[in-house]
Amino acid sequence: MAAVTTLVRELGAAVGADHVRAPTAEELEDATRWTGLRGAADAIVTPPDAAGVEAAVRWCYEHDQPITVRGGGTGLSGGAVPDGGVIISTAGLNRIRSLDPEWWRCEVEAGMTTAELQRRVREVGLRFPPDPGAAATSHIGGNLATNAGGPHAFGHGVTRAWVLGVEAVLAPGELVQIGGPTRKDVAGYDLTSLLVGSEGTLGVITAAWLRLVPPPGAEQVVLGLFPGLAAAQEGIAGALTCGAVPVSLELLDGGTLQDAGATLPVEGAAIEWQSLADPTGAVLLTATIEGDLVEATAARGDALVDAWQEAGATWTAVPGPTVAAALAEWRAGISGAVAARRGGKLSEDVAVPTDRVADLLRGSAAIARRHALEHAAWGHAGDGNIHCTFLLDPADPAKVGRAEEAAVELFSLAASLGGTVSGEHGLGRLKSGHLGEQWGPAAVTAHRAIKDALDPKGLFSPGRKVA
Amino acid sequence: MAAVTTLVRELGAAVGADHVRAPTAEELEDATRWTGLRGAADAIVTPPDAAGVEAAVRWCYEHDQPITVRGGGTGLSGGAVPDGGVIISTAGLNRIRSLDPEWWRCEVEAGMTTAELQRRVREVGLRFPPDPGAAATSHIGGNLATNAGGPHAFGHGVTRAWVLGVEAVLAPGELVQIGGPTRKDVAGYDLTSLLVGSEGTLGVITAAWLRLVPPPGAEQVVLGLFPGLAAAQEGIAGALTCGAVPVSLELLDGGTLQDAGATLPVEGAAIEWQSLADPTGAVLLTATIEGDLVEATAARGDALVDAWQEAGATWTAVPGPTVAAALAEWRAGISGAVAARRGGKLSEDVAVPTDRVADLLRGSAAIARRHALEHAAWGHAGDGNIHCTFLLDPADPAKVGRAEEAAVELFSLAASLGGTVSGEHGLGRLKSGHLGEQWGPAAVTAHRAIKDALDPKGLFSPGRKVA
Repeated sequence: MAAVTTLVRELGAAVGADHVRAPTAEELEDATRWTGLRGAADAIVTPPDAAGVEAAVRWCYEHDQPITVRGGGTGLSGGAVPDGGVIISTAGLNRIRSLDPEWWRCEVEAGMTTAELQRRVREVGLRFPPDPGAAATSHIGGNLATNAGGPHAFGHGVTRAWVLGVEAVLAPGELVQIGGPTRKDVAGYDLTSLLVGSEGTLGVITAAWLRLVPPPGAEQVVLGLFPGLAAAQEGIAGALTCGAVPVSLELLDGGTLQDAGATLPVEGAAIEWQSLADPTGAVLLTATIEGDLVEATAARGDALVDAWQEAGATWTAVPGPTVAAALAEWRAGISGAVAARRGGKLSEDVAVPTDRVADLLRGSAAIARRHALEHAAWGHAGDGNIHCTFLLDPADPAKVGRAEEAAVELFSLAASLGGTVSGEHGLGRLKSGHLGEQWGPAAVTAHRAIKDALDPKGLFSPGRKVA
Repeated sequence: MAAVTTLVRELGAAVGADHVRAPTAEELEDATRWTGLRGAADAIVTPPDAAGVEAAVRWCYEHDQPITVRGGGTGLSGGAVPDGGVIISTAGLNRIRSLDPEWWRCEVEAGMTTAELQRRVREVGLRFPPDPGAAATSHIGGNLATNAGGPHAFGHGVTRAWVLGVEAVLAPGELVQIGGPTRKDVAGYDLTSLLVGSEGTLGVITAAWLRLVPPPGAEQVVLGLFPGLAAAQEGIAGALTCGAVPVSLELLDGGTLQDAGATLPVEGAAIEWQSLADPTGAVLLTATIEGDLVEATAARGDALVDAWQEAGATWTAVPGPTVAAALAEWRAGISGAVAARRGGKLSEDVAVPTDRVADLLRGSAAIARRHALEHAAWGHAGDGNIHCTFLLDPADPAKVGRAEEAAVELFSLAASLGGTVSGEHGLGRLKSGHLGEQWGPAAVTAHRAIKDALDPKGLFSPGRKVA
């Protein structure tokens, strides 16, 4: 304990004693507690501003203290769970520095929650399209650090697509500004994109300039129920070729519907699903179409209905705004509903080329069977990014172990299909070191060279992303 | 000559004698000859495939030979003009490896021209939105190397926004694949974005996976003539706030209209411009609006007309498709028309925050006046990316010298407005070393560290981007 006290005192002397203390038990876990990881740290520092982050990093770098950056702690790969050293919390950096609606841009600090940013942007008649889960508690800084996705990434791109520039603290404690309010810039290497998605392993993002856009004038949701994976894959192709040009294209398989299908808030949906010959083999696709005008957008929805019927959908629906809102709320509860079946789950975020979604789901289900695990899968079909999930009882170590083995096989499967071990959660601590499944040795060497060049002491988020 | 012959012979032995020869005079200049640079190189190698590029890079890296990558040679910053060593031409890599219209993607080799790719994509009912100039002769590889922009970058993003993955040869001659057909991937650092825009200084891009989209159903062009810069800046704001949501928002100032205004292919435009109290102070804004349906898109055009009239436009027009096509052709000739006035020009590509466009143009014109140079400016107002141009007679060294001094002042001006020295052309040889105008020392150090990490011998495009 004496050592801890000394560290807290010395770090406090460097960055302000009011901002440094020992971490709470909650701050040593992820906020959802779904990773099961429990870490350790000697101190948590919550700087009030970017200069404070700079001072904290400088102190840590001088004193060889590993740094874990903590935003909302909602990451699903354990990136925010410390492994010794110092936690730098960005919770004190929670302001919008500027919001210029007429110029479609804002500058926001890393510690603002995603939902708060979205609300502030909405209030001035604009939109920040990225919509990762946990928006109410996740921080923009965490969204940037993981290059977070979400359903609308299909049409609007991932977080990175909306970042004009970042303010960050690099080694050995230097506050830098890369990019800014300017929308085009090719003078330097794209260090903004390099920092976005780097999971705190190259520096600490303290603020970002974000691009905004006006919201669409109209939105149409379309649902289609397919009797099996082959038809669903045809449905995905149909959604891309029918002219509807959806901005989200989501999938829920029969395993997921087993836990959530009965409460589907669309009239007739549950009955239609339950009356299928094989409900557990069914697939529900949902799409969102955005457009200028209600009627034209609805017409594109009709085109999608036609395409889905042709692809073999046994039931389709085009709900109005009220039902669509209920559907979005229902969708947000899917992960919890599936986890509730056995008390826990190991849910991944692999992604594959869009034409290989059915192959991924078949393979993932086969892996589950081989390991005697129940299986469910849902996610962002348009981006081929599916949350393949192995159910487990957290109190059953054998099942947990089998799920972890299954996940490793799933990573290999995704890579063999031309995909990635992580489409939107990042590698964090849980998947660290798996990059070699999908990149060749020379590419991994280049990746390592960048880490070593920007973090020569290896103190930024050690053990995340790179093993 | 003996040394050259030896190099050609030895390189030929490594990569195939048929693919190596001494460069022609044209291959030592940029294709447009607008940079005025004339370089030197001992050999040019034109590998037939990516493995050949790998072999060429490996040989050069072993033999300490600087590498210049040459695509279409159309770059405006001299990036393709060699400065000794070996030219690696990507002209032999000109195939589409795959084109999957139903999955909105293709894999294309670096040496295909932009126009050819766009044509092939169009033929299958899709679109590759980036539209940099010189599409008929520029190569996709060059577009990627410079992260090329163009008018539609305002609505659809720059080249990088459309790149899913790249195949590239890194030091010391290793062919790597980063990314691929999968649309979302956060497993590794974003090396794709790092290579895109790196101007051949980190490796040689040999192929890329690109994202495609369906084209819009309708398009509406709108023109607005403004009596001066203040009104034009109001017009830019109006275009962003009126609900029209244009995908391009272009500007031509009075200096540009002096050379091109008389041939404006829109009825009444030339007369309206010439009848202004101060035609040389005028600004023409043009916007493109895309939508599903002709009528709805036209309605958004009408909203933009209203906004522009309120902002002080003295004349507006909403031409039909035939005139819009003529206008696009006319627009493509602007650069040449301005250059023709005095036989030459120094035309930059600085970019500033969108609200500072008028300030940039005022400042740029003032710089021209101080150096006794004629001035014209045009470009991508929505992205704040303006081709500020100093006219010159290439045979008048004093004027050329003054134009170069003026350009350096323009870079400082852009940086002081929160902008960049290069919005879309890249730094190449002409602007190399100017990154420090806009990035602080620590950021430039990080930039340098990445270069050194990936190109330890400094052989990839030496003198480009980093000084």
